[in-house]
Amino acid sequence: MYKPIAWIITIGNELLVGRIVDTNAAWLASRLTFLGASVRRIVTVGDTVDDIVAVLRDALASSDIVVTTGGLGPTDDDITMEAVAAALNLPLVLNREALEHVSRFYSTKPAELTRERLKMALLPLGAKPIPNPVGAAPGAHVSVGRSELFVLPGVPREMKPMFDSYVADKLKPILPELCVREKSVVVKGVAEADLAPLLRRASRECVSCYVKSHPKGHEAESPLVDVRVLASAPTCEEADAMAQRVIGRLMELVGGGGGGGASSSVR
Amino acid sequence: MYKPIAWIITIGNELLVGRIVDTNAAWLASRLTFLGASVRRIVTVGDTVDDIVAVLRDALASSDIVVTTGGLGPTDDDITMEAVAAALNLPLVLNREALEHVSRFYSTKPAELTRERLKMALLPLGAKPIPNPVGAAPGAHVSVGRSELFVLPGVPREMKPMFDSYVADKLKPILPELCVREKSVVVKGVAEADLAPLLRRASRECVSCYVKSHPKGHEAESPLVDVRVLASAPTCEEADAMAQRVIGRLMELVGGGGGGGASSSVR
Repeated sequence: MYKPIAWIITIGNELLVGRIVDTNAAWLASRLTFLGASVRRIVTVGDTVDDIVAVLRDALASSDIVVTTGGLGPTDDDITMEAVAAALNLPLVLNREALEHVSRFYSTKPAELTRERLKMALLPLGAKPIPNPVGAAPGAHVSVGRSELFVLPGVPREMKPMFDSYVADKLKPILPELCVREKSVVVKGVAEADLAPLLRRASRECVSCYVKSHPKGHEAESPLVDVRVLASAPTCEEADAMAQRVIGRLMELVGGGGGGGASSSVR
Repeated sequence: MYKPIAWIITIGNELLVGRIVDTNAAWLASRLTFLGASVRRIVTVGDTVDDIVAVLRDALASSDIVVTTGGLGPTDDDITMEAVAAALNLPLVLNREALEHVSRFYSTKPAELTRERLKMALLPLGAKPIPNPVGAAPGAHVSVGRSELFVLPGVPREMKPMFDSYVADKLKPILPELCVREKSVVVKGVAEADLAPLLRRASRECVSCYVKSHPKGHEAESPLVDVRVLASAPTCEEADAMAQRVIGRLMELVGGGGGGGASSSVR
């Protein structure tokens, strides 16, 4: 079962100076994962055309799906569309549909739009505008060779509905029909270092599952490990069963003298 | 004034499936910025040696400082040290100092360490262990050509003290002696699209400052824009004054008919 590879690119100096925690990346990563894509890379770059172009070209060369956020606003440092056009060797042109969106948003005639407002209606030639139900700037969707590129704004309350109403829909034909489910168990009283060989054995119950341990307590004095199992299958019942087999086996191993006073609870 | 270029690499499948928001990246980005570095890229990769090696090589080729987090634990998917060794063409060897740390942590003799515990004492040949005051796994510091590479764990309560007590100290000789300060102003009643040309003019007061607007309200109906100015100078007084010049000029422009019922407040 081939899972399309996805890259997420988040754009903005505010991320590089640590002013803002990149919640967009995690939100998109989760959405793409549960839709059946395999997120391979998340890259954050600043508001510099050359840097954005370099990352976009890397991304388009190595993935099926590229989603960018940020840099679509009216200010001078909002240069994502310019960089997308440069990366694809396409001119940036006034898009009629995008222009109508921007005009409607500000309730002004297109002729009265300032340079800063007009800027938000410029898209790479051939790109489809992605409707923005909340803000002024539309996004853009471009098919580039084997990749689908989606350019979204950075404001979360704009980006999220645009992903859910447009991107998720356009991705359906290229995503496998499968259900992704997660199960977790919290193991108390076994250090992660001692849980490691048990995890290795339990993981054999489902080689295609993604199994990850997250240490939460003090490794030596009061160990507490959160174990997550992510399974993908054609039906949700199968995915649930696959994840459950790993959890069940792990609990058996832990209970069977794995860790003295160990206890575990499944969520 | 040359600012050393920094890359941050955060490692872990849990980030790529969106299970965890990458707060480490923002924390490190802020620390590095205020220490006087210029963070150029943040990259998240999964627990795959090839992917980590590729990103490490990119980072080392294009920056002065590389900080990684994640993948230092005892489980099979903790492979960062292996990837660092591969990226640098160095063997992974048992480090005496790291071994003492791990033994002390678990209060056992080195001879009694299991494979999983021993694993945390394996470092690339020539790397210096970075003491971990909280957890089992030490970090590693390697000088590679013009770059300093710091390998830290992903658990924030381990990573943060290791950065503050070790990395910040080792970076001092290569960082410029300067003070980085931030000032902000909230502008109400002016759409970001109309603020853009005023921001452009105000920014001329300090060409080396980083000026960024963050839209918070509804762009057309109730605009509210948070403007941040970040300034670097040899003294904090100068940095404050530089940022203040931009804010002062912007407030003049906004007040001077820039936006009708505009108001602003400085923080």
